[in-house]
Amino acid sequence: MYDTEFQIRAAELIEAGRFIDSRGWVPATSGNFSARLNDGRIAITVSGRHKGRLRPEDIMLVDAEGHPLDGKKPSAETVLHTGIYRRYPNAGAVLHPHSPAATLLSRLVSRVVILEDYELLKALAGIETHEARVAVPIFPNDQDIPRLALGVEEYIEMHGDILAYIIAGHGFYTWGKSVSDALRHLEALEFLFDLETRIHGAKR
Amino acid sequence: MYDTEFQIRAAELIEAGRFIDSRGWVPATSGNFSARLNDGRIAITVSGRHKGRLRPEDIMLVDAEGHPLDGKKPSAETVLHTGIYRRYPNAGAVLHPHSPAATLLSRLVSRVVILEDYELLKALAGIETHEARVAVPIFPNDQDIPRLALGVEEYIEMHGDILAYIIAGHGFYTWGKSVSDALRHLEALEFLFDLETRIHGAKR
Amino acid sequence: MYDTEFQIRAAELIEAGRFIDSRGWVPATSGNFSARLNDGRIAITVSGRHKGRLRPEDIMLVDAEGHPLDGKKPSAETVLHTGIYRRYPNAGAVLHPHSPAATLLSRLVSRVVILEDYELLKALAGIETHEARVAVPIFPNDQDIPRLALGVEEYIEMHGDILAYIIAGHGFYTWGKSVSDALRHLEALEFLFDLETRIHGAKR
Amino acid sequence: MYDTEFQIRAAELIEAGRFIDSRGWVPATSGNFSARLNDGRIAITVSGRHKGRLRPEDIMLVDAEGHPLDGKKPSAETVLHTGIYRRYPNAGAVLHPHSPAATLLSRLVSRVVILEDYELLKALAGIETHEARVAVPIFPNDQDIPRLALGVEEYIEMHGDILAYIIAGHGFYTWGKSVSDALRHLEALEFLFDLETRIHGAKR
Repeated sequence: MYDTEFQIRAAELIEAGRFIDSRGWVPATSGNFSARLNDGRIAITVSGRHKGRLRPEDIMLVDAEGHPLDGKKPSAETVLHTGIYRRYPNAGAVLHPHSPAATLLSRLVSRVVILEDYELLKALAGIETHEARVAVPIFPNDQDIPRLALGVEEYIEMHGDILAYIIAGHGFYTWGKSVSDALRHLEALEFLFDLETRIHGAKR
Repeated sequence: MYDTEFQIRAAELIEAGRFIDSRGWVPATSGNFSARLNDGRIAITVSGRHKGRLRPEDIMLVDAEGHPLDGKKPSAETVLHTGIYRRYPNAGAVLHPHSPAATLLSRLVSRVVILEDYELLKALAGIETHEARVAVPIFPNDQDIPRLALGVEEYIEMHGDILAYIIAGHGFYTWGKSVSDALRHLEALEFLFDLETRIHGAKR
Repeated sequence: MYDTEFQIRAAELIEAGRFIDSRGWVPATSGNFSARLNDGRIAITVSGRHKGRLRPEDIMLVDAEGHPLDGKKPSAETVLHTGIYRRYPNAGAVLHPHSPAATLLSRLVSRVVILEDYELLKALAGIETHEARVAVPIFPNDQDIPRLALGVEEYIEMHGDILAYIIAGHGFYTWGKSVSDALRHLEALEFLFDLETRIHGAKR
Repeated sequence: MYDTEFQIRAAELIEAGRFIDSRGWVPATSGNFSARLNDGRIAITVSGRHKGRLRPEDIMLVDAEGHPLDGKKPSAETVLHTGIYRRYPNAGAVLHPHSPAATLLSRLVSRVVILEDYELLKALAGIETHEARVAVPIFPNDQDIPRLALGVEEYIEMHGDILAYIIAGHGFYTWGKSVSDALRHLEALEFLFDLETRIHGAKR
């Protein structure tokens, strides 16, 4: 079950976690990460582990609906991951940091964060110019995760594709073709969210 | 006297100190940490050491009343630790960082910090939803430590159980079943206190 | 082609990248770095690599006009580097961090940042006293890089020599006789830009 | 000339520099450090070196008046060090970080920073309670270092002993019986200065 492809993806998620934690973006046991294998199974972090100190046994396997394939307990938020993979067939990895900047922004801004006139937008897949305008929706937090996943789904149906979304008081989700693409998106978005909070404070 | 259980707990406290210091939460020789052994004795940091560079000899043993068992000099704040262990029979470790965010908050807010609508509240023991409301009392600083400990005791008698408390201009205390549980609480609270100070600044 | 001088400069750029990234100044794949060789060829970072994790093959060679000499693809911003080398015959290295402070400043200030009364100005080449007044122009971001390079050129013609410039929403460029001189300028400017943003927030 | 005592003190200054730089408190080639030997000679950092990457040859010897004893070039600010050693016979080390917080404070506050109601004041030599009130004077920056040293001297004559002083736009000086005592003062003061700037911003 834990074949070479799984082991490579798991190692990438562990390494990504170490980096994300070193920046302070997954405090305590917050956050969760996943990568999709070629056959559609998903490698995902086990519930309740510190994401900066993951060991191989802290990555488990679920199927495309989020059911555990190896008897371990996946994160309660697994269906947010599977929802993204279902919606975006090219997504190979999903990362959810418990971002301080996104959490703070969700207290200052309601509904949507607009990012524009930033060169760093070009770090996001499919964006070739800083003149782009990227909208990142903010959803209210909800302990009913399937309902939260449905809200994301409906938003995309109505407003079109997104590159990331924020859950209020909770952090954000972003994804990419590979773990390294998703991590580039995460790093760029955290940087831009942080700037937005500082502009908000300085311009007020 | 320094049996295996003591050595394991001491190693955990040393490692926790290294992490806490790497984030800047125990500047100079501030802060103190302890863990309770099965027989009720308490392993606690010696007075005046830098908490990011602890060596095994910097952890000493006191009894449940805080009296030294090995001739070393414990922190002046030892009775705050023993007070927590007496009040909370399940507490196995107490950590006191000299938190910049809690120190700052104690200048901006008086009496109590209310944390709500944060997903990270779920990192605190016994909290299952972000819809919880956690009150962290702020006590005035006092060089008379027994009197300060009594104030904590009286607060809990009157208002019910707490998960942590702040001492104004000084930092906070939190605890857990194990060193790792207490560290999870510390990391989550520091994150939330920091957000609160930034919200306070940005919303003003 | 990749002679010893190239290898030394490449190693310096890789090491500089590691330091710059450790401070959070080249998020995702942003930023680019170069060094001029004695014969006028330029060692420069390949397009799209993470600047904190550069490997020797991520540094390529271009001629003085920015044309690749080894079939690799240089950064789209290569002509900003070659423009600086043309203008400043003593420049031996050019560094472009995607600075959070410069990006933020470019939202708070328009056209030019004035740095004065800072001892750290003495870290900039040719400045012997804190009583100096250093003007750092801000140019609007532009995906037409040759046009942006021309704007820099015209500014210098009109206003005289500069030590660095900011591109709005994008970061800054600075340079020096060697990689280590350019890095000293970068570190000093990032420090001063950060202070300026904080003064702007605190004095408002 | 470079006896064992010198080598031990030099190693302590190098290690202190690495720590201070890791926190971002000596950007570029700013800052300078010294330690007094038993015979009154002073080990001090050579002019123009990066304080986070000091090598043994970057520490030199001067006499009590600041004259080089080994043909190397000491920092231009050497007489500020010798002035402190002359004034305080117990001082064994002087550290001068180019502190971002002190630099920022000197733009927000004029003449003197008052620190009170901070537990961390107890990390400063001779202070036993948070109820202390510590005044840290701010002097205008001056490229005439002997005149600056004289201003410090006159201030102490008029106002009594101090534990540290800030030079506007430049950083602060602090000292202690040993390198480790001076470093404890430095770490505590940087922490408190940073809090003061944040309180200033948040309360405004």
